[in-house]
Amino acid sequence: MDLGRIKINVMNAPAQIKLHARADSPLKRLWALALDDMAAVDALVLERMQSPIGLIPDLARHLVGAGGKRLRPLLTVSCAQMCGYEGTGHHKLAAAVEFIHSATLLHDDVVDESALRRGKRPANLIWGNSASILVGDFLFAQAFNLMVETGSMEALGILSTASSVIAEGEVQQLAALRNIKMTESDYMQVIGAKTAALFAAATEVAPVIAGGSQAGRTALRIYGERLGLAFQLVDDALDYGGFETALGKSVGDDFREGKLTLPVIRALARADEDEQAFWRRVIVNNEQTETDIEKAVSILRRTGALNATMDLARTYAREARLALNVFPDSAWRNTLRDLAEYVVERTG
Amino acid sequence: MDLGRIKINVMNAPAQIKLHARADSPLKRLWALALDDMAAVDALVLERMQSPIGLIPDLARHLVGAGGKRLRPLLTVSCAQMCGYEGTGHHKLAAAVEFIHSATLLHDDVVDESALRRGKRPANLIWGNSASILVGDFLFAQAFNLMVETGSMEALGILSTASSVIAEGEVQQLAALRNIKMTESDYMQVIGAKTAALFAAATEVAPVIAGGSQAGRTALRIYGERLGLAFQLVDDALDYGGFETALGKSVGDDFREGKLTLPVIRALARADEDEQAFWRRVIVNNEQTETDIEKAVSILRRTGALNATMDLARTYAREARLALNVFPDSAWRNTLRDLAEYVVERTG
Repeated sequence: MDLGRIKINVMNAPAQIKLHARADSPLKRLWALALDDMAAVDALVLERMQSPIGLIPDLARHLVGAGGKRLRPLLTVSCAQMCGYEGTGHHKLAAAVEFIHSATLLHDDVVDESALRRGKRPANLIWGNSASILVGDFLFAQAFNLMVETGSMEALGILSTASSVIAEGEVQQLAALRNIKMTESDYMQVIGAKTAALFAAATEVAPVIAGGSQAGRTALRIYGERLGLAFQLVDDALDYGGFETALGKSVGDDFREGKLTLPVIRALARADEDEQAFWRRVIVNNEQTETDIEKAVSILRRTGALNATMDLARTYAREARLALNVFPDSAWRNTLRDLAEYVVERTG
Repeated sequence: MDLGRIKINVMNAPAQIKLHARADSPLKRLWALALDDMAAVDALVLERMQSPIGLIPDLARHLVGAGGKRLRPLLTVSCAQMCGYEGTGHHKLAAAVEFIHSATLLHDDVVDESALRRGKRPANLIWGNSASILVGDFLFAQAFNLMVETGSMEALGILSTASSVIAEGEVQQLAALRNIKMTESDYMQVIGAKTAALFAAATEVAPVIAGGSQAGRTALRIYGERLGLAFQLVDDALDYGGFETALGKSVGDDFREGKLTLPVIRALARADEDEQAFWRRVIVNNEQTETDIEKAVSILRRTGALNATMDLARTYAREARLALNVFPDSAWRNTLRDLAEYVVERTG
């Protein structure tokens, strides 16, 4: 392994990929390992978002060009490499995973009425809700076209099942908005569906296309799922504790939208009467003043709800890490293992 | 063929299927032939719209329960029967086709802000835009799950390609709203994509799953495409000439939304200065009074634009009819051939 070359390659990583991470973070190390693969995925993504209907590439470029960590496709190509895959089908599956994720983001922006996405105005605020809905549909269909090209019906089944589950999770979350009775188990179901399902599918398709063992497949499904759960838990904690610039989204989004996430569910469980009244007012009645988010953060900190959320994330990250033990020692395995650390320690 | 039994079966057709057609219309005759198949499709549709997240079946039932002709899945099962298919995969493909169509309708309702869908309030006006978007995504994903179960990668490719094309057509239509420069060729591209692509896919997957010849496949692709073009042309003519009760949607929807359809494009081509000013005011500037729709209809009638649209529909219907000549004489083929007549003569 030529470290000099990797260093240069990392420096040359696509300009739109802004990694909010230390130079030696596991995320950057994994990117360095997978740089050639990710360049191929990037080329495919750019190619397949093209259309003679100019609005489609314009809008898609706005979202995809806004960067993001490309974490999900990075998982797919890295897991495929770890499994010794030698073809190019993993690039197509990774691009498909990124398209499914992008379609979800475009639809989420309309659903959530978010003010920021990856630090930019979301596409629907520029081109309108209709364009975001329809371009999302286009990207979703393109994801399936890419999967068809791989010829793997098994991979297709895994990703189409995940797509159903994601939509179910999004609907469940929507139906539970401003419902203060949402339980921790409801919450785990929602994040398992809306986030962890795609992580798990992104990692499981790798051994499937590589012709790996059933044990490897199970291990990678668990790895992706636990990583996704940890990722979402941290996201939900960051929404009450991160900084807007680092996060690329507004702090307090969940709070404003009335999304019950684990920090609030935990805080509610130990709230006194005053605090219960506070949460009812801001979440159920949607009566929020400008300083309420600060009060919310202070309650979440004081009651240990944010710490508890991070602790749970660490538990899942540890399980993700352990799942990789069935694979032999390799740079891919070790960096994927370390990635669990990044997912918990990231600040954006 | 036991006519008595068929008659009874037709009487027993699912209550939600309201066919705006004469008792002896080709549509009813095809339904009679395909009744057992369509019952199986109906069962699959109902089964696969289920979810523990109650909002999903509630919303889906509202749309699917609102009837519709189930024309697209009817085409899939009938074409499969005509090709001598003996398995049950055609039920899954037909249900998938219906789900893709339903997902499109749910998203269209949000995009078009329609006041009526199949004679009822559209789902988004009852459950909100977000629910319609997300349940649409769910149905779309479920369509792919059904296709995966058939094991036919070729059928999957045809339907996922069609899904991309549909989304492109919808975006093209959106981008062309209130654009008085839209040409007849732009229009044909839009309806080819947003409507005919799914008809063509619905018919082409039948010989694919039945293991039919390439000639049969080409013929059925042409049949579906031409039928779809005729269907949409009639739809666009009905929007200026049908009756609300028969059509199940508001008359003048396209007019209000500023959608340039063939009747208006044709009328514009022969408009004098006064009429040009009228169309610019109502379409481009979106300044409409209550009587403008009547004035529009009167111009479209007087200039022959509605008749010209219907004539073009008849041409495509004839081409659809002719395409079936490669298939041997059978009740299926003859009724599918006659169906082209229904598509043009229907009133809703």
